[in-house]
Amino acid sequence: MSSSPVGLHRVLAPSGVLPQAAEKLDARPEIWPDEVRIAVERLNLDAASYRQLAEAHGGDGTAIRRAVLDIVEARGKMQNPVTGSGGMLVGVVDEAGPDSPLGVRKGDRVATLVSLTLTPLRITDGLKDWDGKSEQVPAQGHAILFARSIVAKLPDDLKPELSLAVMDVCGAPALTARVVQSYVDKGIKPVVSVIGGAGKSGSLSLAAARRAGAARTIGVVPFQAEYDRLTEASLADVVAMADARDPVALAAAVGEPADITVVCVDVPGCEHGAVLSTAAGGTVIFFSMATSFSAAALGAEGLAADVTMLVGNGYVPGHAEYALELLRSEPGVRGLFESRLAED
Amino acid sequence: MSSSPVGLHRVLAPSGVLPQAAEKLDARPEIWPDEVRIAVERLNLDAASYRQLAEAHGGDGTAIRRAVLDIVEARGKMQNPVTGSGGMLVGVVDEAGPDSPLGVRKGDRVATLVSLTLTPLRITDGLKDWDGKSEQVPAQGHAILFARSIVAKLPDDLKPELSLAVMDVCGAPALTARVVQSYVDKGIKPVVSVIGGAGKSGSLSLAAARRAGAARTIGVVPFQAEYDRLTEASLADVVAMADARDPVALAAAVGEPADITVVCVDVPGCEHGAVLSTAAGGTVIFFSMATSFSAAALGAEGLAADVTMLVGNGYVPGHAEYALELLRSEPGVRGLFESRLAED
Repeated sequence: MSSSPVGLHRVLAPSGVLPQAAEKLDARPEIWPDEVRIAVERLNLDAASYRQLAEAHGGDGTAIRRAVLDIVEARGKMQNPVTGSGGMLVGVVDEAGPDSPLGVRKGDRVATLVSLTLTPLRITDGLKDWDGKSEQVPAQGHAILFARSIVAKLPDDLKPELSLAVMDVCGAPALTARVVQSYVDKGIKPVVSVIGGAGKSGSLSLAAARRAGAARTIGVVPFQAEYDRLTEASLADVVAMADARDPVALAAAVGEPADITVVCVDVPGCEHGAVLSTAAGGTVIFFSMATSFSAAALGAEGLAADVTMLVGNGYVPGHAEYALELLRSEPGVRGLFESRLAED
Repeated sequence: MSSSPVGLHRVLAPSGVLPQAAEKLDARPEIWPDEVRIAVERLNLDAASYRQLAEAHGGDGTAIRRAVLDIVEARGKMQNPVTGSGGMLVGVVDEAGPDSPLGVRKGDRVATLVSLTLTPLRITDGLKDWDGKSEQVPAQGHAILFARSIVAKLPDDLKPELSLAVMDVCGAPALTARVVQSYVDKGIKPVVSVIGGAGKSGSLSLAAARRAGAARTIGVVPFQAEYDRLTEASLADVVAMADARDPVALAAAVGEPADITVVCVDVPGCEHGAVLSTAAGGTVIFFSMATSFSAAALGAEGLAADVTMLVGNGYVPGHAEYALELLRSEPGVRGLFESRLAED
């Protein structure tokens, strides 16, 4: 037996599937020559996963902590069985195998940019320093990276929590920029609407859309406090307020349908509104893990809507560096991130 | 109160949602001025929905029939509560409101190209002529079309069952052709792999890819009988055999990764294999209603795969005419469709 670049050798059950689809991974600390072991410092749970856990346990921090520990113990990874999602982590390289192509060495502080759903993980401190009240989880233990993983060294000029929060959603601004650019390349300066514009992926996506050449940006938020926050950040040309789960209200709030709609809210049921508020021939990018494939496909068909719908791929080459650069250069983005971290 | 072009006035619960998201629709036969009432002749259940019902009831036709009747009675539409999917129907226009923009008149034989999941439906014959053993359901009753529905008159030169089977999957070849064309426009003749190439949407997609300018087409099938069938149809340059739920086996069967992968198999768990067998910078189009949004998004991220992933929109303007034309002009497609209908 040899190790696989995508981690097949760590799958315990069922056999033959990739690590993300596995029920259980082998999280033993001994590494293969192309693997890297990380000493974990902090987990950053996916927003949809944390929300589900918090709702399932009525916001009881102790019960939420127990649930996370149970999942990691049972599965050898942090993958919420209800939402299917995970998150990411930060830590220090403890051992890098001689054949690892990741370019890191012992002592480097890094963030993993592949999902926790496929990362072998063991927790050894019972999460004693986490109150269960936030997605940011101080933790001790170890995690394993495969040859075909993605890892980023944490920059020296930003607090680790801030870098981590940015990297967790860095696929969204990179893909948004790419799609906007494809319109610009065809001579069209698109109108871009970002549902959930005051959130982490949303604010970065708004900044990316503007920088990539959008004619106009619209940020949609669910209530007044977010409206005020996004207005103050000056990241959108128009800030609109609507419940994104209500297609009719959302379409009314957006007004003239957008060329590109970016869905960044982690609540179910936003597919139809996104389609209804996008122009014929336009594009919808779904970044929310709460997106239902069939609701999107059937919704567009049912509305006779000729729109291109993209599954938001969390990986675009250079995405972490791009998102960190947006944070550094856009005070509005940095302000939103810092105020959200302060609330956590 | 007035009627809504997208059917909001027919939603009974919960209020404010679009008909596809509704738990229950108002299926009363009286029409608003912009509606059309169809006298139903036949339902064509979505493959994923029928498969789920058949598995849930152990293939017992009587129980499957009862389940469909119960769903339609409870919901005022045929939407499988487990898969979320529906299907389509054929019938004769019974009454067209004076303000309907659909261009049909009493007596026209038509197929609905919007999903059954949003079409008010009442069944009046207890489905007595259906044995529950196939997706094609002879039925009597009525259905309602809104102003913004899509409906196609059935062509005179094809049997209604054949037209219906084609129209049910006509979004797949139209979108495949559009994506292949976008590569050709950039000077690239793409390699196109169709997972489930011997099926209905798969065979049409293979024909569409070739016609739109693919350099090479690969049809992937699950077992020998399908292999023989697709080989005989001469629709793919290469026919390969693999279980699409096994990413490693699928990638091995496809060989050199494809530029465009089209997923046409209605079984869960094909997302990772599709991503793994697609080249960096390539495109995956998911047409299966069994696709998991999070498995696709996290799978691509976990494999560090820079691929564009499209939600297969069932609506592309002109899709029905395009698919029917493929059927008429490609003996291989027609042969596959006719042999599948003969088996039903």
